[in-house]
Amino acid sequence: MIVVKLGGAEGLDHDAIADDVAAHWAEGVRLVLVHGGGAAATRLGEALGVPPRFVTSPSGHTSRYTDRATLEAFTMAVAGGVNKAWVERLQSRGVPALGLSGLDGRLIEARHKRSVRSVERGKTVVLRDDHTGAVERVDAGLLRLLLGAGFLPVIAPLAASHEGAAVNVDGDRAASAIAVALAADALVLLSNVPGLLRDFPDEASLVPRVAIADVDDALAWAQGRMRKKLEGAAAAVAGGVARAVLADGRCPAPLRRALAGHGTVVA
Amino acid sequence: MIVVKLGGAEGLDHDAIADDVAAHWAEGVRLVLVHGGGAAATRLGEALGVPPRFVTSPSGHTSRYTDRATLEAFTMAVAGGVNKAWVERLQSRGVPALGLSGLDGRLIEARHKRSVRSVERGKTVVLRDDHTGAVERVDAGLLRLLLGAGFLPVIAPLAASHEGAAVNVDGDRAASAIAVALAADALVLLSNVPGLLRDFPDEASLVPRVAIADVDDALAWAQGRMRKKLEGAAAAVAGGVARAVLADGRCPAPLRRALAGHGTVVA
Repeated sequence: MIVVKLGGAEGLDHDAIADDVAAHWAEGVRLVLVHGGGAAATRLGEALGVPPRFVTSPSGHTSRYTDRATLEAFTMAVAGGVNKAWVERLQSRGVPALGLSGLDGRLIEARHKRSVRSVERGKTVVLRDDHTGAVERVDAGLLRLLLGAGFLPVIAPLAASHEGAAVNVDGDRAASAIAVALAADALVLLSNVPGLLRDFPDEASLVPRVAIADVDDALAWAQGRMRKKLEGAAAAVAGGVARAVLADGRCPAPLRRALAGHGTVVA
Repeated sequence: MIVVKLGGAEGLDHDAIADDVAAHWAEGVRLVLVHGGGAAATRLGEALGVPPRFVTSPSGHTSRYTDRATLEAFTMAVAGGVNKAWVERLQSRGVPALGLSGLDGRLIEARHKRSVRSVERGKTVVLRDDHTGAVERVDAGLLRLLLGAGFLPVIAPLAASHEGAAVNVDGDRAASAIAVALAADALVLLSNVPGLLRDFPDEASLVPRVAIADVDDALAWAQGRMRKKLEGAAAAVAGGVARAVLADGRCPAPLRRALAGHGTVVA
């Protein structure tokens, strides 16, 4: 059982990923895919007059501020557009893909954060009406029900709040929580870089391995989105997943390469 | 077991419908919802620069011409926006709703029509690159799997073609095929009119009952969308569903009223 997170940034080779997922599926490997959709949500939001607003927290994390209009654009782009495009790509290769969001059947439950702290011109301000959630629980039973019936679940990064409202969740943390809930053998996070880079964006500075004891050190210098991916990988390993691999989604056979250890292995 | 089709036009009382579905669910009635999304798809398509193009076939049916760009906007609006909004509305009322499209897991299989004949200024032209499908088969096993696990399926009107591509299908026909596949006790089609009107739009001309033997006569004078609803209702009854009701989705307790016989009963 392998959980694969497909990054939502531009540059991934979608056909190569779909070919490789289909090849693994045909070999009997059971998989769950979790996708992002940041670039698609940004494009749709801009077309609808709700351009993205990224905020940086006092601890240095960057996230998408999600008011209700942004959540609605995000839902259309990610749970509609990106999710069904992956389902179609896989089905056209004979894979019985079934797309859901984490909202559906309360597959992913999250704590609704409601407000977010943002550092703007050196001052911390609080933004209300945020529809972002922190992943708390995954319904492994629903995923096992679908896997047992022969489907490959494809999951969009939404979740249900305690009150049953839709919230936007981080796709890397969602994939990590799913890998833990399913006791997966591996979590593979594919993105548009080769893995964790010591000197971003110098791809020759790829770090091949991060021991779980060294994750905090690496988090001190990791940049941008790679911090969240590293946190997700570490949480999966801490939760019992044997290894997590941060790997390149732009090359042929990206999943096979990742499982062979190309990229950054966290274990 | 009741299958409810929620029309995609403007004017339905979404909160009244969600309240009534939740009340029936709490009473132990098992339900499957199928929704439309025409108005939402039109709004999104217009914002994205792909306004809808409606075509009228030589036999007088009006349908949405769906080139690839239109299909992508339709998918975002309907499988993303409308579907997740219904799931959220139901979950906030305690109903374990789970949204899917007919593409997912090949829940609905359709024959890809590819081209559509359109009467334009008295001449019949053939439009290529159409991504519309005719519903052929429903995977009742997948719906029973979800219902048996305690979920209320909420279905967006897409389907998988024989080749695994996404196609847009008529929501009324999809709901009818689902009702037949599940051997439902009733099919309720809620829209923004009280039912079949002899003199559209005069609501006092509501036809309370159409016997299955008289459907062809009614199809000769029924107008617009109501023709497709009547065809869907008749196909459900011909397929073994005890009754189909064309009913008003703008009033309080619309489902309870429909099941009590308000609207047009086809049996």
